[in-house]
Amino acid sequence: MIIEPVGIIHTPFDKKEDCPIQPLYSSDATGRVEVFEQYATGLEDIEGFSHIYLLYQFDRAGAVEMIRPTFLDDEPHGIFASRHPCRPCGIGMSIVRLKKREGNILFVQGIDVLDATPLLDIKPYMPQFDSIESATGGWTSGKEWRPKPKGRE
Amino acid sequence: MIIEPVGIIHTPFDKKEDCPIQPLYSSDATGRVEVFEQYATGLEDIEGFSHIYLLYQFDRAGAVEMIRPTFLDDEPHGIFASRHPCRPCGIGMSIVRLKKREGNILFVQGIDVLDATPLLDIKPYMPQFDSIESATGGWTSGKEWRPKPKGRE
Repeated sequence: MIIEPVGIIHTPFDKKEDCPIQPLYSSDATGRVEVFEQYATGLEDIEGFSHIYLLYQFDRAGAVEMIRPTFLDDEPHGIFASRHPCRPCGIGMSIVRLKKREGNILFVQGIDVLDATPLLDIKPYMPQFDSIESATGGWTSGKEWRPKPKGRE
Repeated sequence: MIIEPVGIIHTPFDKKEDCPIQPLYSSDATGRVEVFEQYATGLEDIEGFSHIYLLYQFDRAGAVEMIRPTFLDDEPHGIFASRHPCRPCGIGMSIVRLKKREGNILFVQGIDVLDATPLLDIKPYMPQFDSIESATGGWTSGKEWRPKPKGRE
């Protein structure tokens, strides 16, 4: 399967060390999601959503590791039980707040990706389907994201 | 970007006409998510999560259309403001309930994809980050999924 990016995500984060780990952890961080002109018409009606999913390419992740420690604790966990970037397919996903749209540019808040990250898709967050308060968070329950240890990818 | 599937999603739905539109609409439909053996170790600790995201390839979608009607109403909407399959990159996303795991097979409920759909990624649903009850659903607010009209992709 060959996929081509539909845009670029612009953020303040040039280096992995500076990049927050999850949107909630970076609720003030703002960024711009640039959708390439040929796809801009696909943004019609997106302004009504307060939150959107961004799917993007982890283009600067390290080698794939199926079991590894994460940023929540020192225990190793399976890659499909975590959001860590070093995963097969290399697709990242973040939920961000949509502040406004200007043409083909979306201004978002709570961004947690590196600057110039290739954008693969945008999907609307629909609370009637996506908000599942009763869900159980497995090994992540009750844990808080920690700052990244130096030198850890 | 070239990506290779990490598994296959097995469901009761052979034809688009039979396939539910969103997981909530198909809460009883069960399926099996087969993760290829070489990636099975990545499932460690996933059992603790009640819900998971499946990312998959819309391998039988029609041509990409940037603005089109959806299954919620007859009005056209931008593809990035909907979850419709006819989208650039062709990546689908569903939240499903995880019932149990047997080795490299996950048994899930609330599945809404076609049988033999290529699996791209699994991510845990973490309610502390992913459940946003206050989010606004834009043009989808207050609407319910309708059965697919015959002949519509």
